[in-house]
Amino acid sequence: MFLFLTYLLTFTLVTTHGLHPLDPLTPLELNQVKTLVKKSYPNATFHYVGLDEPDKPKVLSWLSRSNQTRDFLGSRRAFVMALVDSKNHEITIDLSRNSFFSDKVYDGNGYTMLNNEEQADAIDLPLKYAPFMDSIAKRGLNISQVVCDDFSIGWYGEKNTKRAIKVMCYYTNGTINFYMRPIEGIVVTVDLDEMKIVDYRDRLVAPMPKADGTDYRESKQDALYDNHIKSMTILQQDGPSFTIDGTHVRWANWDFHLGFDMRVGPVVSLASIFDHDKNKYRLVLYKGYISELVVPYQDPSEEWYFRAFLDIGEFGLGLCTMPLQPSTDCPQNAVFLDGYYTTRDGDIAKVSNVFCVFERYAGDVMWRHSEAALPGDHVRPDITLVVRTVSTVSNYDYTIDWEFKQSGSIKISVALSGILEVRGSTYTHKNQTQEEEVYGTLLSENVIGPRHDHFLSFYLDLDIDGVSNSMMKSHLRTFVVTDELKGNSRKSYWIRLGSGTTEITIVNPNKETKVGNYIGYRLIPGSPVGPLLLEDDYEQMRGAFSNYNVWVTPYNKFEKWAGGAYVDQSHGDDTLAQWTLRNREIENKDIVVWYTLGLHHVPVQEDFPIMPTMSLSFELRPANFFDHNPVLKLKSPKPVDWVYCSTKLPLFSQ
Amino acid sequence: MFLFLTYLLTFTLVTTHGLHPLDPLTPLELNQVKTLVKKSYPNATFHYVGLDEPDKPKVLSWLSRSNQTRDFLGSRRAFVMALVDSKNHEITIDLSRNSFFSDKVYDGNGYTMLNNEEQADAIDLPLKYAPFMDSIAKRGLNISQVVCDDFSIGWYGEKNTKRAIKVMCYYTNGTINFYMRPIEGIVVTVDLDEMKIVDYRDRLVAPMPKADGTDYRESKQDALYDNHIKSMTILQQDGPSFTIDGTHVRWANWDFHLGFDMRVGPVVSLASIFDHDKNKYRLVLYKGYISELVVPYQDPSEEWYFRAFLDIGEFGLGLCTMPLQPSTDCPQNAVFLDGYYTTRDGDIAKVSNVFCVFERYAGDVMWRHSEAALPGDHVRPDITLVVRTVSTVSNYDYTIDWEFKQSGSIKISVALSGILEVRGSTYTHKNQTQEEEVYGTLLSENVIGPRHDHFLSFYLDLDIDGVSNSMMKSHLRTFVVTDELKGNSRKSYWIRLGSGTTEITIVNPNKETKVGNYIGYRLIPGSPVGPLLLEDDYEQMRGAFSNYNVWVTPYNKFEKWAGGAYVDQSHGDDTLAQWTLRNREIENKDIVVWYTLGLHHVPVQEDFPIMPTMSLSFELRPANFFDHNPVLKLKSPKPVDWVYCSTKLPLFSQ
Repeated sequence: MFLFLTYLLTFTLVTTHGLHPLDPLTPLELNQVKTLVKKSYPNATFHYVGLDEPDKPKVLSWLSRSNQTRDFLGSRRAFVMALVDSKNHEITIDLSRNSFFSDKVYDGNGYTMLNNEEQADAIDLPLKYAPFMDSIAKRGLNISQVVCDDFSIGWYGEKNTKRAIKVMCYYTNGTINFYMRPIEGIVVTVDLDEMKIVDYRDRLVAPMPKADGTDYRESKQDALYDNHIKSMTILQQDGPSFTIDGTHVRWANWDFHLGFDMRVGPVVSLASIFDHDKNKYRLVLYKGYISELVVPYQDPSEEWYFRAFLDIGEFGLGLCTMPLQPSTDCPQNAVFLDGYYTTRDGDIAKVSNVFCVFERYAGDVMWRHSEAALPGDHVRPDITLVVRTVSTVSNYDYTIDWEFKQSGSIKISVALSGILEVRGSTYTHKNQTQEEEVYGTLLSENVIGPRHDHFLSFYLDLDIDGVSNSMMKSHLRTFVVTDELKGNSRKSYWIRLGSGTTEITIVNPNKETKVGNYIGYRLIPGSPVGPLLLEDDYEQMRGAFSNYNVWVTPYNKFEKWAGGAYVDQSHGDDTLAQWTLRNREIENKDIVVWYTLGLHHVPVQEDFPIMPTMSLSFELRPANFFDHNPVLKLKSPKPVDWVYCSTKLPLFSQ
Repeated sequence: MFLFLTYLLTFTLVTTHGLHPLDPLTPLELNQVKTLVKKSYPNATFHYVGLDEPDKPKVLSWLSRSNQTRDFLGSRRAFVMALVDSKNHEITIDLSRNSFFSDKVYDGNGYTMLNNEEQADAIDLPLKYAPFMDSIAKRGLNISQVVCDDFSIGWYGEKNTKRAIKVMCYYTNGTINFYMRPIEGIVVTVDLDEMKIVDYRDRLVAPMPKADGTDYRESKQDALYDNHIKSMTILQQDGPSFTIDGTHVRWANWDFHLGFDMRVGPVVSLASIFDHDKNKYRLVLYKGYISELVVPYQDPSEEWYFRAFLDIGEFGLGLCTMPLQPSTDCPQNAVFLDGYYTTRDGDIAKVSNVFCVFERYAGDVMWRHSEAALPGDHVRPDITLVVRTVSTVSNYDYTIDWEFKQSGSIKISVALSGILEVRGSTYTHKNQTQEEEVYGTLLSENVIGPRHDHFLSFYLDLDIDGVSNSMMKSHLRTFVVTDELKGNSRKSYWIRLGSGTTEITIVNPNKETKVGNYIGYRLIPGSPVGPLLLEDDYEQMRGAFSNYNVWVTPYNKFEKWAGGAYVDQSHGDDTLAQWTLRNREIENKDIVVWYTLGLHHVPVQEDFPIMPTMSLSFELRPANFFDHNPVLKLKSPKPVDWVYCSTKLPLFSQ
């Protein structure tokens, strides 16, 4: 038996035979959108183009039909957010009829997501701007070595705002890692609609941190450290165990769809698990994705106070998705899928290898038991499926993993790496500083890593074995033993219900297991982290989803993003926190769970000049969803029956 | 190039050339211990034999010597806990002089750890005990199908106690999984010193849960589920990257010793990390192990109230360690080590494959960054080293992993699987029950899984770059912006210090990085879980280490076990909680951190009849220990340069 090890398969999200109702828009459809919009609005700029999904009940009844024709679903539609003469147009396009279905102008607070092209234009402006060139010369720096980046400006109670960003610049000159060399003190404000500099500040001069030791390219290290790790790979003799048909992934007992969206990035939908006892797939998750992400920095100085980025609504996690690199970003046994998005002018940008999908065997165990009195252990190794994307939002790299387990769990991890956003400083040693002055850690001479948070809001439209679900909040509480039970020498024990430690389970109150427990899935949270800002602080009003770790709302097609639709300079008047004030019914309804995963990041010197990965995760785990352990009767994996590997095509002496 | 895939190397913890001061006792030494003790006390029974380590300062100065002779360390010693005529002898043996060094009798509360042989004898007693046989006959059960297990009885304020256990029995008859078929209502009390039944209760009869669906052996399933997972393995062309010399493990930038102790199981000591900049190893952890483990059940009924097992002090995590099974308990690239302990009569028991050591590549990333403007990602795959043991304490299986990362982190995970301890019940459907009556979840007809906790106390003698360390408790707190800063539109930000969220870092206050930060390691905790029992509850007094997640004590050679030395029926008067009342100095001292990892377990039907793994973990992560990211300059791993694998020895057409 032979196998070719370095199989590098690339699937595409575009399937040739009939589209699934949740398929992302195809390149053909994206072109159709451009043509239609440009016909009506020749000078429109595109800020979002995505699928306008058919209504959920329609999708669900389509799924249950034997004859899944597209006609049943009605027209296929696209949703466009475009700027036309500084007006926010929300255009729904009927792709089947090749016409506008609706066209509304949004007139509320906040602005649409920025596109990459306007950001690229804006960060070039200072380089030809005389006052900036003077500032650079004054610092003795060479303008040809200056690169700039743009920063959303938030909202701090201003009555009148314009669509604007701030631009701050860095110095390369001997390093790829310009983030470690901020040109501190200069803030350029750019009006995006007019694409011109409207404010210029050069407040202070800080020493330029040195370039030495900041470059992370292997080729640029003076000497490499060798930990003598021998080569290692994962080998699948017969190829992967999953199939990908367009956006449809089937692996082991799981069946789900993958979507790529230019705003939120990876979307997992219709995740169903095969119940071998009932001989059918049962729905778990109608749709899941990261709906918003806020990174508030904790430095109140003029150049830093406004840094509380809402990365998804402002910059787009999809727009920031990076092509994955085989064998390093994903293991050798991974397969890759491409994705597409629309540029400012409506053209198609392709992200190659936007997803990788691979089976993981990390040496862990799915279940085990040794019975001392009886020979042999009983063990099943844990093989799982991982779907990965990486979004690099300027300096920060977010590796997002959706991991499916045969036991029914879905584990969602976000691994943070990349480069810190740092501040230039006169300090070269901690003994020159006072903690309250520096708002961070002195990472290297003249480099301070300001403290900050990361809060991610996961949209989890769970449909546990059906659409109508309830959240069950089980409080574990101490029960003090009464006289009646005191004979048993126990003073206390704990029961469920009451106040105290909380467990969250989403149940289907209309369905029970054989012995009468509600069918459910439990949320196994990561370390609970909450915001430390005042609730009425501007950043916190805009990123209010971090006020709680778990929110539940009734499903509403228009409540997609926890920070609202128009996030750039938003006022916090269209967020998850506001929607929940309506106090709608959530008992035995189609509900959405919003889970906040967070981290307080106090930088350490090990984060300089590039951060070792820090991983956060949570899990959705079946809780009385099955009548018994769903992997009990699972066949052991096939043993590996080959033993020789070589670099050459061998001959056999048959 | 060829490689033989199924290399299965077994090392032994006994090295042939000179012993390391922290090496566990060798079989030869264990024999010497038996001979010496039996000479003085012919009827002694052994309950613990372990290394009596040389004093810590001695070991540390030995380590720094170029000429590491054993003479410098003084005599090699063993520590023995033995029962002689019901008296607790604590015997220190001078192995070099082949004589007793000391022999004391302990006269306090509590009893020594149980040995396996007395437990085996005790659980056989009911099977020949007439009242028990009558009870079995009364229930219509066949005595030949009855198996029993023993349960430590705790302490509930009794003035006079004897060394005793309770025995409860199960029914096999068609299943290996007797734990799912409790013979509820019968409690037998056995006096261990007299080895006879001293109390017998047959309080109630519950229906016998059915055997169907409980067996977990693959061969016993009526039909197997096939998830069609194709075979998968980890391949290391040139073998593993680590070396094991006796107890000494070297891998990548890590250097540490492995010990096996019959009480606590796996012990990691002298873990040092190579600092490529300073060109030397720097100490992180002098010694680490799980010092105690408590599992309180939350059912106050007569047969259950006393179930709050202190598994380590009562049953021995080392005594319960299971031989690991290649290719399922550990991946194909693992190597194995053996361990030894002393039986009741002083003989040597060998546990084959007590440790496995393997390199893990789970497809994760050590660090990464994509620079949008520049070609290529910069990514390092994360290859780590795992040291694994599994302890099966009757029904529960604990997989304990010490994972070393090249970035300097040590991640410690405990994965729980095995079988629930369940209670027989008349109920067959939840609608027959009231929550407060059943103290758990109805898992199957007539089977209730009572709620319980797991709390593990990790002993972490951290010596961060030297012996004298301090704990730095950084509170992150909200800082409300004063008038002075208000111009900047920020109402609040957060700083360190104050009250609120806490970060724990162990620092060496005598050493600083170049820019003046204290050298340190941060404790990244798992989800914080605390006990729900009253602090003056008997179980809670005995397992009081769970009152807090983090404790710090000054190093004291005799404070080894968080639940005390004599845990069986202990009164809680010799625990971590008591020691800390002495309020000793811990600032810039040799300190020990005790970390409590915990879980509230509300069983679900998926836990029936065997539990899918639930994993808990925490991490020790460098925090200003290095001057910069220690894996920045790391050479990329060698690419895998072979492509063909086959089942047969191939011929080459050279």
